[in-house]
Amino acid sequence: MKCLKTHKTFNGLTQFWSHDSHETKTEMKFSTFIPEGSIKGCIVWLSGLTCNEENFICKAGSQKILSDLGLMVIAPDTSPRGLNLHGEHDSYDFGSGAGFYVDATQAPYDSNYRMYSYVANELYDLIQNEFKVKNISIMGHSMGGHGAIVIGLKNPDKFKSISAFSPIVNPSVVPWGNKAFSGYLGSDKLKWSQYDSVELLKAGKSHPNTILIHQGTNDEFWKTQLMTESFIETAISINQKHHVKFCDGYDHSYYFIASFIQEQILHHSQYLK
Amino acid sequence: MKCLKTHKTFNGLTQFWSHDSHETKTEMKFSTFIPEGSIKGCIVWLSGLTCNEENFICKAGSQKILSDLGLMVIAPDTSPRGLNLHGEHDSYDFGSGAGFYVDATQAPYDSNYRMYSYVANELYDLIQNEFKVKNISIMGHSMGGHGAIVIGLKNPDKFKSISAFSPIVNPSVVPWGNKAFSGYLGSDKLKWSQYDSVELLKAGKSHPNTILIHQGTNDEFWKTQLMTESFIETAISINQKHHVKFCDGYDHSYYFIASFIQEQILHHSQYLK
Repeated sequence: MKCLKTHKTFNGLTQFWSHDSHETKTEMKFSTFIPEGSIKGCIVWLSGLTCNEENFICKAGSQKILSDLGLMVIAPDTSPRGLNLHGEHDSYDFGSGAGFYVDATQAPYDSNYRMYSYVANELYDLIQNEFKVKNISIMGHSMGGHGAIVIGLKNPDKFKSISAFSPIVNPSVVPWGNKAFSGYLGSDKLKWSQYDSVELLKAGKSHPNTILIHQGTNDEFWKTQLMTESFIETAISINQKHHVKFCDGYDHSYYFIASFIQEQILHHSQYLK
Repeated sequence: MKCLKTHKTFNGLTQFWSHDSHETKTEMKFSTFIPEGSIKGCIVWLSGLTCNEENFICKAGSQKILSDLGLMVIAPDTSPRGLNLHGEHDSYDFGSGAGFYVDATQAPYDSNYRMYSYVANELYDLIQNEFKVKNISIMGHSMGGHGAIVIGLKNPDKFKSISAFSPIVNPSVVPWGNKAFSGYLGSDKLKWSQYDSVELLKAGKSHPNTILIHQGTNDEFWKTQLMTESFIETAISINQKHHVKFCDGYDHSYYFIASFIQEQILHHSQYLK
């Protein structure tokens, strides 16, 4: 693990790292904020389409509240990099910058595009072993909100709490998810359902703590890609505790995230003690 | 004046604008944050080398405190754009992205590179006429910290208060300033002194209110380009009220700015009532 850059921020450290991933078989990058003093817990942040390890840490304004609460954040890149697989760099919503937090089964993506296992296992272990932090929660935005809910629901013992901004909660039935899942997983919808929050809930997965979601009502992707209402309906039907806050007039951008990041981090802090 | 983008942020609006500038004779862009409700005052933010109208508004995390205090911010681009003057795009520290807040007198820059008058007069009038805000202060970072102090000292009746992060306070004697002033103003050092905070103080310019400066001690440009100590010495010698805060371990980045932006905005809020 190599530290690439360090910037003192709110008495703590914003840092950029690289390491050789055994899951993706590539060099992976991530950013962290580490508060001064003892670290009470760590929140994994998963970013959305086109993002890398820098967007969240530089735009969300999370460091002040993390510093106040003594929490660390870790934000990995959204896909392997440095490869040149067939079709990998052709579009913003598939391949590089768009790993969708699945373990691909389709060639040529199956050897490297293992972002599910990278986050749920390799990065999780790295937080515990390298940063010596045991209490871990997960959150994310859009594609990363999807990743956070899926990974949290499948690993409720590992991740203490889950939250998301504008998550893609039912990727199997929307254009972004269709394209990504077809490319990474092929046509078998049973495989798709393993990475679909709504389908996971229907299949009996749940998390003991309230899942917090913020969704802007001026989000251009709300009705066509995100399917927030399907999550609410399904969560109600299986008694999954959840709190979906519709935020009047907010869009899909980091300006929205910045406005409510404190609320989400405070949510996680209840469970990271 | 054309609104290009609007993002609801902390109950207010982050917006991007363009207008035809009569000073630069080009289309100029700027960003704003406008709080909900009545606006108590406006702070002009001047950015540093290589920046445009987006850096501050997306990275500094200023919107929460501006929203809390009912203050607006306006952040213009750092130079004219869309021209192709000789040498304009050859380096990061001269020409595009590096207007240095002077009115150029050297051809071919003299017709367009009028960033001093653009900010001190045209943008100032635009704030009053288009946004209907009368109380205006000024701040900035690095090259923009230089711009803020110079423009504030030369217009103490217009700008209620001045602050800066890591400002270039004595550009006449450092490499960045030498290069820029030679290119924009020629070799006459008398002209240079009109845009040099230390020289302006020595020549009797002053501001009635405390000038607040934050300077990181881990800033790679501190000792070679910024000359913070010359500002302090000169300010003391002419009784200019000032408060220079050396911030242990902080660098020249937006992570530093984000850490102390609340302090600077609170400083201005005392004078914007």
